[in-house]
Amino acid sequence: MDRIGRYEFLAEPFHCDFSGRLFLGHLGNHMLNAADFHSTDRGFGMRRLMTMQRSWVLSRLAIEVCEMPQQYERFIVETWVESAMRFFTQRNFRVVSTDGNKVYAYGRSVWAMIDTATRQPTDIMAIDGGALKEWIVADKECPIEKGGRVRIDLTNAALIEEVKTAYSDVDINGHVNSVKYIEHVLNLWTIQWHSSHRIRRFEIAYVAEAHAGDTLQMLTEQKRAKMLNDDGEQLIAIMKDGEKEVARCRLVAEAMADD
Amino acid sequence: MDRIGRYEFLAEPFHCDFSGRLFLGHLGNHMLNAADFHSTDRGFGMRRLMTMQRSWVLSRLAIEVCEMPQQYERFIVETWVESAMRFFTQRNFRVVSTDGNKVYAYGRSVWAMIDTATRQPTDIMAIDGGALKEWIVADKECPIEKGGRVRIDLTNAALIEEVKTAYSDVDINGHVNSVKYIEHVLNLWTIQWHSSHRIRRFEIAYVAEAHAGDTLQMLTEQKRAKMLNDDGEQLIAIMKDGEKEVARCRLVAEAMADD
Repeated sequence: MDRIGRYEFLAEPFHCDFSGRLFLGHLGNHMLNAADFHSTDRGFGMRRLMTMQRSWVLSRLAIEVCEMPQQYERFIVETWVESAMRFFTQRNFRVVSTDGNKVYAYGRSVWAMIDTATRQPTDIMAIDGGALKEWIVADKECPIEKGGRVRIDLTNAALIEEVKTAYSDVDINGHVNSVKYIEHVLNLWTIQWHSSHRIRRFEIAYVAEAHAGDTLQMLTEQKRAKMLNDDGEQLIAIMKDGEKEVARCRLVAEAMADD
Repeated sequence: MDRIGRYEFLAEPFHCDFSGRLFLGHLGNHMLNAADFHSTDRGFGMRRLMTMQRSWVLSRLAIEVCEMPQQYERFIVETWVESAMRFFTQRNFRVVSTDGNKVYAYGRSVWAMIDTATRQPTDIMAIDGGALKEWIVADKECPIEKGGRVRIDLTNAALIEEVKTAYSDVDINGHVNSVKYIEHVLNLWTIQWHSSHRIRRFEIAYVAEAHAGDTLQMLTEQKRAKMLNDDGEQLIAIMKDGEKEVARCRLVAEAMADD
């Protein structure tokens, strides 16, 4: 079996925004689906891990968009493991047109493996004698920054919005799902802003879990609050119930030229 | 070409709720995708209509669930045109397992055709000399109630919740998309309620369009407000900006036996 997985998806109409382009959250969802299919097909998927009291946990996701697929376009999400250590593995993504001629996006992700009983990190290499290493593709290019810790100074933070989470936010683990955070963050900007800016890079680090009913606070640094509608870098921290940090995002937005 | 369309879908992990079952909104989305594929394959799809200054508009959707597909299950959405008149056509759905042995759900929908310039209803039979009639399947069973007007007495309504719509709610027409209404309505109930009740029937009638930024009021009749957490029938009216009705829903929920 090829070490690189390739999975085809469709930009469904209800997964596209006002401009007819795929929502970034849905692109992220397709990447996570591809990761799941790839690992399942190669023997280290979520369902098998569950039987071993283990689970993959997404720690970080970074997406850089060249051009978003348009409504009804079919596209391929390629995914492969770039590296694997004891407590973290890096998985990359490349989103291309079905003929392979156009690159829509790249992605990078970092995953940990936890013990589902203790919720503590466990040794990835303990699974099948480190079999994951056999799937590493070290030489396939993923020409986007890795992205590290998102630095936000929260000592003087400005509240942008509060979001009450509900039934539809929550996955089978009872946690607010990774894709819904992306959706909630992009909702901080109006359609008017989205129609004159495009998200070139979106980066999210998952810090702790939130549950249905938790109220999320979307914050930025005080000094950045008045630049929220500018282009360039935006930093968003997500807290729950005013005290605990749940996730951090870094966006890079570009102003679009008028048509 | 068969008059009945059959399209396969997967219950993706992030499209499943806390119980590992497909969200009803996503089932609705798959039905609407199937409708779109079916009509496109047969020459009366949205993209061709757009070139003729016409568009399909979903007027009503009713879904009855026997059993929701579980995470990772593949299923088939069958769809066919039951009847077609000058201003409305009825399209049905049957959701079955890939081996055809298990029925997950049935659906009924009513569609109008509008002139995209005037937004007024137009004659469906004017398209290709009434060619839609050739696709009618009158004898395939869809054993669920048609459902008519949802009657709600709004003279004495109780506000349940307000929902501010945002970027991710809106489709290519700039309108809050049909699937997002289902999501917002099901969010009116807590996970605790959803874990002890299942939605047997969900019915929605689309009355007017809402746009990003509109605040939706979710209302029920005053006398029903205290029964909102009971089983049985629930009636929800959706208004925008406190004055204009946007949609009406009728749910039938069943209390589940304790495990």
